[in-house]
Amino acid sequence: MSLFRSILLGGAAASLAAGAVLAAAHGNSAAEAAIKARQAHMSLYSFNIGTLGGMAKGAMEYDAAKAGAAAANIVALSKLDQGNYWVEGSSTDDVMESEALPAIWTDMADFNKKMENLTAAATTMEGAAGQGLEALQASMKELGGACGACHKAYRKPE
Amino acid sequence: MSLFRSILLGGAAASLAAGAVLAAAHGNSAAEAAIKARQAHMSLYSFNIGTLGGMAKGAMEYDAAKAGAAAANIVALSKLDQGNYWVEGSSTDDVMESEALPAIWTDMADFNKKMENLTAAATTMEGAAGQGLEALQASMKELGGACGACHKAYRKPE
Repeated sequence: MSLFRSILLGGAAASLAAGAVLAAAHGNSAAEAAIKARQAHMSLYSFNIGTLGGMAKGAMEYDAAKAGAAAANIVALSKLDQGNYWVEGSSTDDVMESEALPAIWTDMADFNKKMENLTAAATTMEGAAGQGLEALQASMKELGGACGACHKAYRKPE
Repeated sequence: MSLFRSILLGGAAASLAAGAVLAAAHGNSAAEAAIKARQAHMSLYSFNIGTLGGMAKGAMEYDAAKAGAAAANIVALSKLDQGNYWVEGSSTDDVMESEALPAIWTDMADFNKKMENLTAAATTMEGAAGQGLEALQASMKELGGACGACHKAYRKPE
């Protein structure tokens, strides 16, 4: 049974994926679904930043088109609506798998500002990434800074 | 050490996440990084489709703004550049964790067409989702069909 049929029709054979999604409608499981989505979102940032970082440090051959696409992906990801991500009860105080510090919920305005800074830094990178390796390298600091500023304030320390 | 510092500076303390990203530069691990990214991407489709499906079947209260945002997210996700996802050696024939059938690589034009169909269906949903529950429900079939058509042809059967 596909995810879609599971969602639309219900059914005992619902896949694990569908279960995780449907869980969003039910109490505590909303937190689990949100955490899973947040972590997936972060994985996609990492994947695209890995392309840019790999080129920046010479581990990967510079490719203007691929670099520009990776930067554009980060911009688009940063603009996704994340209204369903930050549900109550999904911080490190609530769920073991969570890496989201409770400060997110008490400092939401600052948290959102830091996400806007990511959009800005990724947009700068989008303009630079296709303009040559040096331009890409020069924009890594701002992009890394935007990631790091939010992680430092709002992500569970390693 | 942050993901960024790991990527830029290297270092033995590189996090698992950074390791997965950096792995993209090294042979077979490119497949693993791509598979992880593809599955994260699918998780984000699921999360947003879960919102729409939850409302469509009445498990979640209809909310025009949330429905529209979920549909817009699916549109944006479908437009992300996925050029780095479909690396050689990342099909079900190559990697146990993969659910991507080898047909993707032999029928890439059709595969891409099916992804365009998803963008089209999600765009229809984006227009409908905020227009009331009935409009949302009416657009679920096209969106579900777009998901299902690609899964049927190119995803490992459950």
